[in-house]
Amino acid sequence: MRLRRVNGAEEIIKASKHCINNPEEHCGSYSKIFENDNPIRLEIGMGKGQFLINMAIKHPNINFIGIEKYTSVLVRAVEKLGKDSINNLKFINGNAEDISSFFSKEIELIYLNFSDPWPKKRHSHRRLTSNKLLRKYDDIFKNEKVIIMKTDNQMLFEESIISLNNYKYLISEITLNLQKSDNAQNNVMTEYEEKFVNLGLPIYRLVAKKTEH
Amino acid sequence: MRLRRVNGAEEIIKASKHCINNPEEHCGSYSKIFENDNPIRLEIGMGKGQFLINMAIKHPNINFIGIEKYTSVLVRAVEKLGKDSINNLKFINGNAEDISSFFSKEIELIYLNFSDPWPKKRHSHRRLTSNKLLRKYDDIFKNEKVIIMKTDNQMLFEESIISLNNYKYLISEITLNLQKSDNAQNNVMTEYEEKFVNLGLPIYRLVAKKTEH
Repeated sequence: MRLRRVNGAEEIIKASKHCINNPEEHCGSYSKIFENDNPIRLEIGMGKGQFLINMAIKHPNINFIGIEKYTSVLVRAVEKLGKDSINNLKFINGNAEDISSFFSKEIELIYLNFSDPWPKKRHSHRRLTSNKLLRKYDDIFKNEKVIIMKTDNQMLFEESIISLNNYKYLISEITLNLQKSDNAQNNVMTEYEEKFVNLGLPIYRLVAKKTEH
Repeated sequence: MRLRRVNGAEEIIKASKHCINNPEEHCGSYSKIFENDNPIRLEIGMGKGQFLINMAIKHPNINFIGIEKYTSVLVRAVEKLGKDSINNLKFINGNAEDISSFFSKEIELIYLNFSDPWPKKRHSHRRLTSNKLLRKYDDIFKNEKVIIMKTDNQMLFEESIISLNNYKYLISEITLNLQKSDNAQNNVMTEYEEKFVNLGLPIYRLVAKKTEH
């Protein structure tokens, strides 16, 4: 994604009630922030937040946290919410690399939506389904380890299946054309996904669960 | 596939030197038929034989066996060979259901090319990647259990990934567009595949290996 610098983005994020500015301090105790014991789901690379905002509205009994590394993108999500409060939704400006210092045994499920494909082999360790990142996710899950991934990028999808399988995640659901699948009706779209679907292009989706043996 | 009855097909197959008419009697000892200890690969549902014939010519140090249940289809493969001998290629007229009575701990690899998708849920146990069939393959592999699958059928491919994963096969290679992948150059096509590719439609391919833990 080409990024446009947004003046004052950092300050807006720091001042926003929707954002958690010191995630390391809440590691292991996000339930306190939400003031309930509902399950907590995480989107890594939440972008401008459309998916998470609509998911949070649709599922009031699930807590959602989004992580986004670019302040100029995250600020758009903050602006979307404005003064409205959604009690079951929080944002974090941070990097997937640091995720194990943000959370500890408290996440029910990770969403990876239209992640950067990092097409060059020498960058493949940066993919959010790389062995390196999958290892970091291990410690943040509460019980079962579940990843739900959507992408339009064929290479990323293929490589992710292999990488997930190598790290003992098994594919329990998969579609090579989400819009024409049984899941289409319940699908909550990202901003990017909406544009892509309007062009008639297929979205790939999978659900992967880690086996413990 | 709509089948045209071919008069005398059974007789032609029975009389052909390319065919093994009593596979149960050779169970566990196909090396004797080939008169060498080269690895033996199996295509289940070999159709009219183009894939296997070209593979056998391309890889003279690998033995190939094809199984086809319809005599009216298998007879076309027999006719293709005519009086020519390909020492490393044999055909069997039989059903995948009976495979564990045909072979015993002697197969290196199974090819499943453009298998019948059996789209109805109540027929799903007939798919060549169903749990029921995967269980039968267990006993015929010599060492590692490896399946290479190609199909144009999206549903069959999706369901096969899940079924293979559930039966402890991990995906080690996958492409959602074989013609545009690194494997395109080495790809040996079936008759059906050739027609499909000429229409510009994508072929899905995967390699799956069973883990033993």
